[in-house]
Amino acid sequence: MKKVGVAILGLGVVGGGTYQILTEKKEFFKKTQGLDVTVENVLELNVERALSLGVDKSIIASSIEEVVSNPNVDIVVEVIGGVGVAKTFVTKALKSGKTVVTSNKELFAKHWPELEAEAKKKNAGLFFEATCVGGVPIIRALQESMQANDIQSIKGIINGTTNYILTKMAYEGSSYEEALKEAQRLGYAEFNPTADVEGFDATYKLSILASLAFNTKITIDNVHREGITGVDTDDIAYGRQMGYTLKLLAIGKKGEEGIEVRVHPTFIKNDNPLASVNDSFNAVHLVGDSVGEIMLYGRGAGALPTGSAIVSDVLFAAKHDEYFYAPFKNNEKGAAATKYAPDFSSQYYVRLAVKDAAGVLAKFTSVFGKNNVSMKEVKQIAAEDGVAQVIIVTHKTHETVMKKTLEKVSALKEVEAVKACIRIEE
Amino acid sequence: MKKVGVAILGLGVVGGGTYQILTEKKEFFKKTQGLDVTVENVLELNVERALSLGVDKSIIASSIEEVVSNPNVDIVVEVIGGVGVAKTFVTKALKSGKTVVTSNKELFAKHWPELEAEAKKKNAGLFFEATCVGGVPIIRALQESMQANDIQSIKGIINGTTNYILTKMAYEGSSYEEALKEAQRLGYAEFNPTADVEGFDATYKLSILASLAFNTKITIDNVHREGITGVDTDDIAYGRQMGYTLKLLAIGKKGEEGIEVRVHPTFIKNDNPLASVNDSFNAVHLVGDSVGEIMLYGRGAGALPTGSAIVSDVLFAAKHDEYFYAPFKNNEKGAAATKYAPDFSSQYYVRLAVKDAAGVLAKFTSVFGKNNVSMKEVKQIAAEDGVAQVIIVTHKTHETVMKKTLEKVSALKEVEAVKACIRIEE
Repeated sequence: MKKVGVAILGLGVVGGGTYQILTEKKEFFKKTQGLDVTVENVLELNVERALSLGVDKSIIASSIEEVVSNPNVDIVVEVIGGVGVAKTFVTKALKSGKTVVTSNKELFAKHWPELEAEAKKKNAGLFFEATCVGGVPIIRALQESMQANDIQSIKGIINGTTNYILTKMAYEGSSYEEALKEAQRLGYAEFNPTADVEGFDATYKLSILASLAFNTKITIDNVHREGITGVDTDDIAYGRQMGYTLKLLAIGKKGEEGIEVRVHPTFIKNDNPLASVNDSFNAVHLVGDSVGEIMLYGRGAGALPTGSAIVSDVLFAAKHDEYFYAPFKNNEKGAAATKYAPDFSSQYYVRLAVKDAAGVLAKFTSVFGKNNVSMKEVKQIAAEDGVAQVIIVTHKTHETVMKKTLEKVSALKEVEAVKACIRIEE
Repeated sequence: MKKVGVAILGLGVVGGGTYQILTEKKEFFKKTQGLDVTVENVLELNVERALSLGVDKSIIASSIEEVVSNPNVDIVVEVIGGVGVAKTFVTKALKSGKTVVTSNKELFAKHWPELEAEAKKKNAGLFFEATCVGGVPIIRALQESMQANDIQSIKGIINGTTNYILTKMAYEGSSYEEALKEAQRLGYAEFNPTADVEGFDATYKLSILASLAFNTKITIDNVHREGITGVDTDDIAYGRQMGYTLKLLAIGKKGEEGIEVRVHPTFIKNDNPLASVNDSFNAVHLVGDSVGEIMLYGRGAGALPTGSAIVSDVLFAAKHDEYFYAPFKNNEKGAAATKYAPDFSSQYYVRLAVKDAAGVLAKFTSVFGKNNVSMKEVKQIAAEDGVAQVIIVTHKTHETVMKKTLEKVSALKEVEAVKACIRIEE
């Protein structure tokens, strides 16, 4: 039976889950995979933590050098996170010809080309299923199942923290702050929630997914990013009445003008399959020219779901000798050649607070008209203390046109404020 | 660049789609996969059909011998269907050491062990993503992404024809016969619809999926099979009012008593992710001990979706030398060792037509009680001409107990008929 030696760098939540699966299922993998997998090393500064997980002292390495020089280690699992030591360690492992399996989306989104170049030099494998959407096998699907497709779009709810918060706001009417606190209490959000709530995490993942989907290198600085900190519970409620559900959607689309990549709060129709993806669940929907519509749904985070993805990479790497490298120029030149369409067009939901007086409607609708923003629906929601809430749903409009129009609208003396501007996705 | 030669046996709907993808995307595959894929042979008795698809006369083979002796053919795609010539041809291809890619669920469900034994002799690949759920990559997910999981259940809507019919009955109130006719008109159902509507197609697929999920050989004769021909539109409507959606569900479960495998009309809660899988769409939901819940959704049939699955197998086979064989004893001995739990338990929805008279309720509820079938809900729906429709929802009950109870109930003189008995799945 083929023997496979694994080292785990970092025994945090995901590292712990990975260690647990690999050790508890040793016999299961012999039986079902014909592979004898052994954790040969762990690298974890917190020795107490390692021992509490049942790690034998003899396999706790004291340095990355010890790990990469261990001839019994074939595969190095990096679950440290961040781009500091993680990058140094992964590079050292690849330079030693070890195959690397990582869950580190930030590292991968920022440094994939360099890491891949190192991997190729030694014909080492570089696996990253766990970087995106936890246990949902979207990376393997893009690499090994969707190859017959020219993919037109990939859309996903790929951050569990924000989806939990938005679900809470939608179904319980909580404010953003209340929902965030609850998410922190449950461990779904970190003490410093910025990476999640400002959309950085989703941006990292989208850059990886869109690169694979469109066979071209998508860099994170080309992803239009907006988080959910400005979302008002009222708009979620108004939207629902109009048949829309609010999600932090990651959107990649290939059009004639180029590629759109964006992460922002988005209204989708209530009957869109993504609309019923609630709580901390994730899902990715894609459209390919052969397969049509397809959606993958599951847990986007957590020790065991993400561990499941890592272990699937370990077993895949152990079984197949041909490694996957990006099917496109994964370097600066390739990245520079990608054609983007930053001035995308979209439908918009706009909420204005306006003076509750005759003639106001005509004033701002004429500004929309002059700027060629065609309105699909105008609706007055409520009036209080002389201020009316008006919701406008537009037809498809370019982003730059919409911005300019709203600047002009907000300059009107009859308009107290532009309360919300949320894109609507089919 | 690696050259890959493909032969296609059969140019029906799926064969045509496969030919189209392989030829139209030749340059795309060079760029994205680094593979130069050529259709070297097609075997199709209807030469007119082949020519109309643009096939060059020179590659139309006149016999399977010509195909398997062609040294340029590496991979043989079988899309003939059935277990007659298809079996002969696939066996000949494997004996010649060619890798086989097939969409033939009947062949695979009935003869997988023999075919695999042939494949192993010559170290040939045997790929079958297209046998189950069209373009949805459920086979690859089970083989290459869910390996870290002890899978507890797999449930799916895996037949598009019946899902189309049931959706039509649910949303338009059509009778079964009307919906079937419409499905035939649209090409979703065949002239002889038996394989779909009687659940044979779903049974074939479930036996393949459950074998992979549970790492043991599941034979089709152990799958409890019921089709949708007896479904009454009224029960779909009554169920919806009670919060249930009716689907032809394929269910595989691993419990302490053994494995349950069954295909039958099933009520699921309206908020179950499978409940919103409508029309000809398919989906598979599974629960693994590491990954938790996961669902894959997409088109279960059609020339291009199924072609997408076949081509993904062709490219996978061309890229990876290590072939997948079943991770369990895939022979008669293995099949005999599988432990089933045929007397599964379930909740039931029962509709009775009873005499609309005092004391009737007490009569049949006492039969339920005596047989230890605990009732969760009893509801009288309508009374007409002295006959009342009563719906009973039970708590979990063993199948054999339920059957015996209903026999006794139907023997009561106050009970005109047991109009429906539909299992409810959590």
